[in-house]
Amino acid sequence: MNLLLFEPSEIENENIVWLQDRRSEHIINILGCRPGDTVRAGVINGPIGTAKVLTIRGKGKKAEVSLHFAAHDYQPEQPVIDLILGLVRPIMLKRLLAQVASLGVGRIFLINANRVEKSFFETNLLKDENYRPYLVHGLEQAKDTRMPQVSIHKRFRPFVADYIPAVSKTYCRMLVAHPEAETGLKQLEWPGQKGRILLAIGPEGGWVDFEINNFMEQSFVPVSMGERILRTDTAVVALLAQLMILTDYKEAT
Amino acid sequence: MNLLLFEPSEIENENIVWLQDRRSEHIINILGCRPGDTVRAGVINGPIGTAKVLTIRGKGKKAEVSLHFAAHDYQPEQPVIDLILGLVRPIMLKRLLAQVASLGVGRIFLINANRVEKSFFETNLLKDENYRPYLVHGLEQAKDTRMPQVSIHKRFRPFVADYIPAVSKTYCRMLVAHPEAETGLKQLEWPGQKGRILLAIGPEGGWVDFEINNFMEQSFVPVSMGERILRTDTAVVALLAQLMILTDYKEAT
Repeated sequence: MNLLLFEPSEIENENIVWLQDRRSEHIINILGCRPGDTVRAGVINGPIGTAKVLTIRGKGKKAEVSLHFAAHDYQPEQPVIDLILGLVRPIMLKRLLAQVASLGVGRIFLINANRVEKSFFETNLLKDENYRPYLVHGLEQAKDTRMPQVSIHKRFRPFVADYIPAVSKTYCRMLVAHPEAETGLKQLEWPGQKGRILLAIGPEGGWVDFEINNFMEQSFVPVSMGERILRTDTAVVALLAQLMILTDYKEAT
Repeated sequence: MNLLLFEPSEIENENIVWLQDRRSEHIINILGCRPGDTVRAGVINGPIGTAKVLTIRGKGKKAEVSLHFAAHDYQPEQPVIDLILGLVRPIMLKRLLAQVASLGVGRIFLINANRVEKSFFETNLLKDENYRPYLVHGLEQAKDTRMPQVSIHKRFRPFVADYIPAVSKTYCRMLVAHPEAETGLKQLEWPGQKGRILLAIGPEGGWVDFEINNFMEQSFVPVSMGERILRTDTAVVALLAQLMILTDYKEAT
């Protein structure tokens, strides 16, 4: 945990926060804080700042900590990349959500595809925002406060044929990962534009031709990692990292 | 499995290969091959080509397949990046070895560091090349035949102070990942050179100052991913992917 994160609703009058969960435990047992110490803290989708420990009551897992939060005058910028992901199995999704949040992504569209197992949509992970703690872990790791917005789309065709046309104008570039594409990200032109990017990465086993064609009809450009075929989890991190370096992606400073 | 891989020793007279393991099972049950069919195949550290199924004997896991291998006239190029990795816990190491092999790395130095748990060096995974199947999976995934060469270094200081000076001339650039570095990979100059790169990424928790200083004394340049602190497994894939795009990294064609 490189950044202590609060929900906006946790900040009470006079910027006081009371914690009694894994965060208070972390503050006491891992960071070894005492009253008067400060830790880096931030508000989800809000500013970054510092939190000063005021009181510590009790011990162990039940210890309760009160802190005073002082926001700095900035908050991390909105990420420029949104991600469409063919739904992967839950164990991989948990890891990927944390990794994607730590790299910085605005929206995550989890969508159906031919090679998605139907049972993946029934997992508890997708219910009642059970996936949210994994996103929080990624933000805590990367010192970011911008929570990716996750949406779940159980039908491929309406998502690509109806939803995408409605939002495509907000993107300066739409890309679909496809190992058979002859173009790598580097071969595309990357002017100094500030527009947003939408990247679609297939489920385990990849997109089928029908899906690639659907994306291309919506003006997605197929891109590959050269001759290599990467597993979905590797491709997500690799392509996001490459886009970060190719675009004018600015980190908060 | 996007490429069927043979050990050089498995190729018998007249380029015949006999298989009776997960590979023959894959050929029969997943690919549904019959005698006369061909599959993409390659020899570890050797050429890529095709393998023609000659005979199938038996069923299920005990099925035995014979194939005739025909090499094409090329083999994948030697990767330009070598990786120093602070040893991570075994479950993460298994995944990372496959991911690193799929991205293409020449050598992997698994080294000790202050934040490496000593027990990690005692795991069975590191004994008798038990890690090798994970590398093979990565190569099968990425259609590569170049097996990364793994070495294990239980003492940090001799590795950096004695071993590195002996090999540093073979690298045009040596980098150490450090979240506090002010330079990202993009800020470095990347002339069209063809030299090799050595990248050092810390264990979970990162390098300590002593270690960063030791690397810098050996002319390693600290690099970061901007403001973000990434977990080791994310940093490895992200930095390798960025280096692939920044260097004149050529995939086999």
